[in-house]
Amino acid sequence: LRIAILGYGNVTRALLPLLERDARFEIAGIHSRSRPAAPDYTTFLDQSRAEVLVELTTLNPYTGQPAIDHIHAAFARSMHVVTANKGPIAHAYHELAAEAAARGLKFRFESTVMDGAPVFNTFRNNMPGVRVLGFAGVLNSTTNLILEAMERGGSFEDGVRYAQELGVAEAEPSFDVDGWDAAAKAAALANVLLGARITPAQVQRRGIREVEPEALRSLRTQGNTIRLVARGRNEAIEVAPEVLELSDPLATGRGTSNVIIFETDLMGTLGVVEINPGTEQTAFGVYADLVSLLEPGSR
Amino acid sequence: LRIAILGYGNVTRALLPLLERDARFEIAGIHSRSRPAAPDYTTFLDQSRAEVLVELTTLNPYTGQPAIDHIHAAFARSMHVVTANKGPIAHAYHELAAEAAARGLKFRFESTVMDGAPVFNTFRNNMPGVRVLGFAGVLNSTTNLILEAMERGGSFEDGVRYAQELGVAEAEPSFDVDGWDAAAKAAALANVLLGARITPAQVQRRGIREVEPEALRSLRTQGNTIRLVARGRNEAIEVAPEVLELSDPLATGRGTSNVIIFETDLMGTLGVVEINPGTEQTAFGVYADLVSLLEPGSR
Repeated sequence: LRIAILGYGNVTRALLPLLERDARFEIAGIHSRSRPAAPDYTTFLDQSRAEVLVELTTLNPYTGQPAIDHIHAAFARSMHVVTANKGPIAHAYHELAAEAAARGLKFRFESTVMDGAPVFNTFRNNMPGVRVLGFAGVLNSTTNLILEAMERGGSFEDGVRYAQELGVAEAEPSFDVDGWDAAAKAAALANVLLGARITPAQVQRRGIREVEPEALRSLRTQGNTIRLVARGRNEAIEVAPEVLELSDPLATGRGTSNVIIFETDLMGTLGVVEINPGTEQTAFGVYADLVSLLEPGSR
Repeated sequence: LRIAILGYGNVTRALLPLLERDARFEIAGIHSRSRPAAPDYTTFLDQSRAEVLVELTTLNPYTGQPAIDHIHAAFARSMHVVTANKGPIAHAYHELAAEAAARGLKFRFESTVMDGAPVFNTFRNNMPGVRVLGFAGVLNSTTNLILEAMERGGSFEDGVRYAQELGVAEAEPSFDVDGWDAAAKAAALANVLLGARITPAQVQRRGIREVEPEALRSLRTQGNTIRLVARGRNEAIEVAPEVLELSDPLATGRGTSNVIIFETDLMGTLGVVEINPGTEQTAFGVYADLVSLLEPGSR
């Protein structure tokens, strides 16, 4: 499979060794703003003669662009698309999925919500005919780290600094602490698994700025904690800090760990936990999506 | 797909409605000791002219029989096999898998370890090329219920009664409380995912009889609990009660909930959680295995 890659960040760097040791894949080229392979991305796609676009550009969570345009451009050139970019799924999933289906192309995005841990593929591959009724997830690593730092006695600012030192939080942390990242993931999950048509701005969203360190520490002595939880059910999609028992599956794990719990019709309630994931996992999710394109009869 | 079913317990009863509404499946017959469809099971298999055996007879955890014989008999008749019976996987996985491969037949057993939640299929379908380095799981519902009852102030016997009232524990609970069930699941996981060749009797096994209710309650005040944990790594496969922090992913969930955490080479550490599963989930796992037989190119 000939692969064109847009974007040259950490995920691309972690993906390359996985592709290099697998003879089924051939890299047609990598194009990014800092290392352009052509005058513009459409020329790059034309020249690549690739069968798949791997879209790994930087997220604009407020619009999903320019990744949405990149994906349309790939479909227009009869290329399958794999992306780790949650913007297009949060903002334009139905439009993109319909275009792929109309052209007989595949569109994969496992790494958009939980760093490559199987979420969408769990339902696509392992749960035939199962309907998701709702989800609840702790999906943002930065807020986990900040809340933990506050539990240990620090201030909100200490927590932000700690998450930045670990390389998890951005210099400008509002995308995480105000719940935008979780809202984008919630919108992606709702669009794909609940059939919703929602954008991140339409998610009811409350971040963790109002969480008081003292309140958190006093909750802790009662066996409780606070996590930023993304919930979806029917048309109600929301992100908010919630008080959870320490033994609640959503409160599980430390550090950057993520958890998602699904309520389903035929398979009851089940979830996926990812312990301290990193870029390698995100890259592996992209690789798994690429391998799935090779399978006969895959949808 | 024509299906012959051996065994007529709760899982069979929960499976039938799933099969009846799916036109791709046809039930050739159901044979059990209480409701025989033929003089013996080999005659039943011959007469069924089925393409798949669904093996759902009662577990003998100490030998894996007679299920192992049933599965050999089906392979000898060129039938694929799906089973929810952990005995054959714990006792004879490699021999059965080799026979299936030699005959070009498929052998599926998703429901043997975690009531149908995707464990084996997560690796088969979603994680191409990933090697499992180790696992740790809380996989026995009865011991969870007993330990919780003891935490709430009851005795060991109160806990056993409680689990029996819920219909989870057997009249003779030693299979669960002495760790045999967890050891069979650990052996199955080790055989399939770690390439071990181990039987339940070879698993280092300690049950929960020695856990003191007072110790459990005093641990609880320190934010800790005890669970019966099955662990596997290289050749070391063991089952034992372990002290866990309440926020440990393994301590998550209440009641009959199960958790398994895998350590892998390419996908880091990730897990599957199942909240209060029942027979419906086990039956769904069997159904999902049957659907997977229809997929072109499935292994």
